[in-house]
Amino acid sequence: MSFKQVWSDEIHQDSRYGIKGEILVNHKSKYQEIIIIKTKNNGNALMLDGCWMTSDKEEKYYHECLVHPALSSYEDPAKILIIGGGDGGTARECLKYKKVSSIDLVEIDKDVIDLSKKYLKNTGQEAWKDIRLKIHICDGMEWVKEIHNNYYDIILVDCSDPKEHSNVLFSLSFYRECKRILKQNGIFATQSESPEAFKDAHLNIINSVKKVFSIQSTLYSCVPIYPSGIWSWTFASDNKHDFLSKKYKNIETIEKSCEIWNLNYQSGGFKMMPNKILKVLDE
Amino acid sequence: MSFKQVWSDEIHQDSRYGIKGEILVNHKSKYQEIIIIKTKNNGNALMLDGCWMTSDKEEKYYHECLVHPALSSYEDPAKILIIGGGDGGTARECLKYKKVSSIDLVEIDKDVIDLSKKYLKNTGQEAWKDIRLKIHICDGMEWVKEIHNNYYDIILVDCSDPKEHSNVLFSLSFYRECKRILKQNGIFATQSESPEAFKDAHLNIINSVKKVFSIQSTLYSCVPIYPSGIWSWTFASDNKHDFLSKKYKNIETIEKSCEIWNLNYQSGGFKMMPNKILKVLDE
Repeated sequence: MSFKQVWSDEIHQDSRYGIKGEILVNHKSKYQEIIIIKTKNNGNALMLDGCWMTSDKEEKYYHECLVHPALSSYEDPAKILIIGGGDGGTARECLKYKKVSSIDLVEIDKDVIDLSKKYLKNTGQEAWKDIRLKIHICDGMEWVKEIHNNYYDIILVDCSDPKEHSNVLFSLSFYRECKRILKQNGIFATQSESPEAFKDAHLNIINSVKKVFSIQSTLYSCVPIYPSGIWSWTFASDNKHDFLSKKYKNIETIEKSCEIWNLNYQSGGFKMMPNKILKVLDE
Repeated sequence: MSFKQVWSDEIHQDSRYGIKGEILVNHKSKYQEIIIIKTKNNGNALMLDGCWMTSDKEEKYYHECLVHPALSSYEDPAKILIIGGGDGGTARECLKYKKVSSIDLVEIDKDVIDLSKKYLKNTGQEAWKDIRLKIHICDGMEWVKEIHNNYYDIILVDCSDPKEHSNVLFSLSFYRECKRILKQNGIFATQSESPEAFKDAHLNIINSVKKVFSIQSTLYSCVPIYPSGIWSWTFASDNKHDFLSKKYKNIETIEKSCEIWNLNYQSGGFKMMPNKILKVLDE
């Protein structure tokens, strides 16, 4: 039996980014519309509320750039918090670090996790079976409010674009809670949108994170499936000593396992703020 | 009178990259199909044989990364050769350098130049009126064969993807001719495709350039309108002394004029070879 190949598109202003495939899932959860398609060349791909989240072939561009700059620059990354990340890719990259003892993955939409486990096996891989991974179906802001001070080593925000239920994850109050529950030398990381397709959101994130943490830096790279292709991740801390420099002992092993990221790639990405963004931030 | 807004798509494997707009030009030249559309948010955009070439809004991502790494690292960039570049954007960036005394722009398709002058005014801007710019409607390979040894300071290859009439511009024999007509400390630069969407072509370019020139380096960045968004430009020379380091005196003035590129951005881009490309090249 053969299924119909159709185009699914993320439409952003005058542009559209389409992937052709067979629709495996077209489901309305409590929070959003979830579409999963099966493609010939990209593996399976996940779309939430009309926006591409991930595809088997290209997800490493996103997950490796969110996780490794934070974890590689931490000697003993034991307790990790992931906000969002329901496809399992961020958890998978974190679990490569033997020193990680527990990951709290806080995802608001249980259906995203259940469907990812079933249809995006290449993304979560063995992460779902790892006893260090604890899943909590919960609003991210509510979770961080309940955690006591100085608890996590690393917080990774792996969420969709700012809108409705994810808006709060880009707020000053959320960033302040994250800072409170991070250890003193802890590292905060968030996806920070595209400087081209979502310039205002991108600038807002950088400016807000700057108000809360004493140091920060934004890494630029690409995610093929996202509007404009250009994407960014912002890292922050209150520990000025060697922020984002290599500290994890066996990082070379992690480097070898990666498709996109390595320490050199990372040091390049931190220099690639487009001139027009630099000019606006300098004003 | 209002015109119909339609989607024009570049289709690559399972993916499509579309821009919505009013079709201003749909013309079959001697060499290719030329489409120019007018959009609300991206300005005008040019498509050749179904592939996006440039748009008013996003062309600087491409042109600044092709031109400035070469010209900024040259003390006296006087004689420039551009192969392709019929939209005028590469010439425009070169003409920012006061030391440039002449640019030979060798474009095979006169219609691309004529239509760009009329419909992509924001890309060529004043370049077409600059007496330093000489236009030659000619095949790139034929042009380089006719030039005597050690003639140009810089050669910039600004061409479309390898196919039919552009294939020769990615050949060893073309690179060898370029090396012959470059001065001893001259710099060769070519767009070198996407490491994601056109991985084989990308690797072929790097490997071929390496066979001809003694040193080379590939810069990675993004072009929003191109398949996968990730793009690359490869620079080469036989002059080992300070390859691709700042030499042009008033480079700060050029930096200020740019939307994307600056010297820091460039040094980052040269580090961003994706790990999976690095692994293949190391084999």
